[in-house]
Amino acid sequence: MEKARESLRVWKERVEQELDRVVAFWLEHSHDQELGGFFTCLGHDGKVFDDLKYVWLQARQVWMYCRLYRNFQRFHHAELLDAAKAGGELLLRCARVAPPGRKCAFVLTRDGRPAKVQRTIFSECFYTMAMDELWRVTGEGRYQTEAVEMMDQIVHWVREDPRGLGQPQLSGAPAAEPMAVPMMLLNLVQQLSEDNTALASKYAELGDWCAHRILQHVQRDGQAVLENVSVHGGELPGCLGRHQNPGHALEAGWFLLRYASRKGDPELRAHIIDKFLLLPFHSGWDPEFGGLFYFQDADGLCPTQLEWDMKLWWPHCEAMVAFLMAYHDTGDPALLRLFDQVAEYTFRQFRDSEHGEWFGYLNRQGKVALTIKGGPFKGCFHVPRCLAMCEELLGSLLSRVAVDREPTCSPPAPAVPTRGGAK
Amino acid sequence: MEKARESLRVWKERVEQELDRVVAFWLEHSHDQELGGFFTCLGHDGKVFDDLKYVWLQARQVWMYCRLYRNFQRFHHAELLDAAKAGGELLLRCARVAPPGRKCAFVLTRDGRPAKVQRTIFSECFYTMAMDELWRVTGEGRYQTEAVEMMDQIVHWVREDPRGLGQPQLSGAPAAEPMAVPMMLLNLVQQLSEDNTALASKYAELGDWCAHRILQHVQRDGQAVLENVSVHGGELPGCLGRHQNPGHALEAGWFLLRYASRKGDPELRAHIIDKFLLLPFHSGWDPEFGGLFYFQDADGLCPTQLEWDMKLWWPHCEAMVAFLMAYHDTGDPALLRLFDQVAEYTFRQFRDSEHGEWFGYLNRQGKVALTIKGGPFKGCFHVPRCLAMCEELLGSLLSRVAVDREPTCSPPAPAVPTRGGAK
Repeated sequence: MEKARESLRVWKERVEQELDRVVAFWLEHSHDQELGGFFTCLGHDGKVFDDLKYVWLQARQVWMYCRLYRNFQRFHHAELLDAAKAGGELLLRCARVAPPGRKCAFVLTRDGRPAKVQRTIFSECFYTMAMDELWRVTGEGRYQTEAVEMMDQIVHWVREDPRGLGQPQLSGAPAAEPMAVPMMLLNLVQQLSEDNTALASKYAELGDWCAHRILQHVQRDGQAVLENVSVHGGELPGCLGRHQNPGHALEAGWFLLRYASRKGDPELRAHIIDKFLLLPFHSGWDPEFGGLFYFQDADGLCPTQLEWDMKLWWPHCEAMVAFLMAYHDTGDPALLRLFDQVAEYTFRQFRDSEHGEWFGYLNRQGKVALTIKGGPFKGCFHVPRCLAMCEELLGSLLSRVAVDREPTCSPPAPAVPTRGGAK
Repeated sequence: MEKARESLRVWKERVEQELDRVVAFWLEHSHDQELGGFFTCLGHDGKVFDDLKYVWLQARQVWMYCRLYRNFQRFHHAELLDAAKAGGELLLRCARVAPPGRKCAFVLTRDGRPAKVQRTIFSECFYTMAMDELWRVTGEGRYQTEAVEMMDQIVHWVREDPRGLGQPQLSGAPAAEPMAVPMMLLNLVQQLSEDNTALASKYAELGDWCAHRILQHVQRDGQAVLENVSVHGGELPGCLGRHQNPGHALEAGWFLLRYASRKGDPELRAHIIDKFLLLPFHSGWDPEFGGLFYFQDADGLCPTQLEWDMKLWWPHCEAMVAFLMAYHDTGDPALLRLFDQVAEYTFRQFRDSEHGEWFGYLNRQGKVALTIKGGPFKGCFHVPRCLAMCEELLGSLLSRVAVDREPTCSPPAPAVPTRGGAK
């Protein structure tokens, strides 16, 4: 046990230092001091190579800064708060394509004009996360109103009528549910419900619905998590039906672990660890070069996505959080060993010791394939969220008197700080 | 010179045999005997792994089969013609999303229901190519009517009013012209004008416009071909403006070489060889592992596309055609050496000697990254088109009495058979 405790202590120190370096990178390179919001297209040395403002990444950075400001004493300073507020104001002013309609752009020009729209809910989801956090750090009600109104719009699109998203109705389009949709909604329910009895109650049924829908993605007698299933919970034909994304399943895993903890349901927790953590990890880990494959086919066929065998930063971030949270909630040392395996690979392969932050895209062999630190899909989000959550989980584990005791199968009572969102 | 002649002879034999093997692969594995059209999602051994019907690929295979049937005695048999007609009927019956509107789907279910629509002109362009060829092999006027009506619709979308494509009008969207648009239109002009004085006359001004617009993609004082420029022919800011695709520039190169030949303009031909062949080849060829990079950034920055350093089959097909056509049209032995360099790499790395056809996607080092022979974007098109065109060009070169003479800078008179489309 002393060995496990020592490992936790060492990881806490590494993670803490790394979080400092990562936040420093974004503080130094990403702020648009003139027009508000963030540059996220950053080269290996932080130099801006494009000034487009991707709405997902604007909103995620606002969320991340608020979270850090709110939960970490050392980040509780005006530079983060002011940048988050400026980013939030840019979103309020510019994200919506045709106000008062709530559909948001996918990408804006530097000065906030919409350049591209996706026919999905994700810009709006990250917008909601940003607004809810801004409310929490500033106490300004207009942010919360914005968050809740957008949330209700998203729920309407998902559960009642998707027409506002602009997707054409085609007779041959499969009635497919991407796992991202209930995942994202469950994440929003957890975000909005944190320390908020009224909203927790309002969204309780939605949270159950999300969990149920995510669990339907476990298919083939429990032997595979499939990214897309039919809206009735069956397997879909073709590549779409066989598509797997191990990192995404692991992320769903820790969203569901939080759900199971709130429910106090150890049976559900064991099922989640089995299906959303161990299964995708064992099938998705590259036995030859290490790291998680990006995409797989459930029949073992070759995926049609060109990047299928690349190693991306974010699945590894999600795996770190998932295994550490699962260890935190169960005390099973096998889960700590898996955290250790993933975290060692991740720190060794993705971290840039020269300029800070992490590389995002490695080839199968683990060599850096893209030297960018940020781009259309990589911003100030997965890396700091992972590090912040790991720091808190490790802190909670180390603070337990019980940590010296032999772990058992019955989980120790989870520490309260890890239950709410990224806390 | 005897050496050059021997090289041409050897290549003609290799190319001819390879075309036979490639066509045999598609004949054996891709026909949907029951419902018409083609399966294009084929594994390394030809096994169907998805039965979706991508409209680009349906139409391209119809076009390819007709072309082979029409121009090669050994492919002039009913199996190709019947399959092409069945594919054409599927397109006529099912490609349009909402007839009588002319917008076509991007992908259909096996039984022809639309599953996805793109807000671009490309499904419609390949549809036009297919219909024009079907007219040429069957003599049935309804196919030509369909081709010309669709062509006029496409020209209307491109030059007059794009609203029928369904793209949202966004104030921040750059007024960009992807090179693919005038390229595709020039290709269609060449297709429809072949041995057709009336249509050649109808589309002459359009052909000039296309060539002018493609030439505008040469930027930075002639030092770079950029994939996207402003509609006024200027460089665009950011990644979009710096984006380069060497294989695409080479393909544009041979479209333009045909244009220059029809015009009888050797000055233009020299410019095209310089800017669309030599420039992209020298900047796009990987000095370390060989092969053409898929994408590049004109400032030498890291592209944001994950697959940027992969080696794809089709840019190498286009480079083979471009260099052989340029050699055919000029007699410059340096161009034959470049053909030889590209073709040796291509035959060595992409060809599958076991199951036939070519692998489509290699990693930077040249190792097969995706084992599929067909998928959403790879069908019966680039490989057989390249081989068929090379066979014809090599035949034309070998039949010349002039081939034994020392080549000079003044081009020999081009042989007529290479001028019309892929002939």
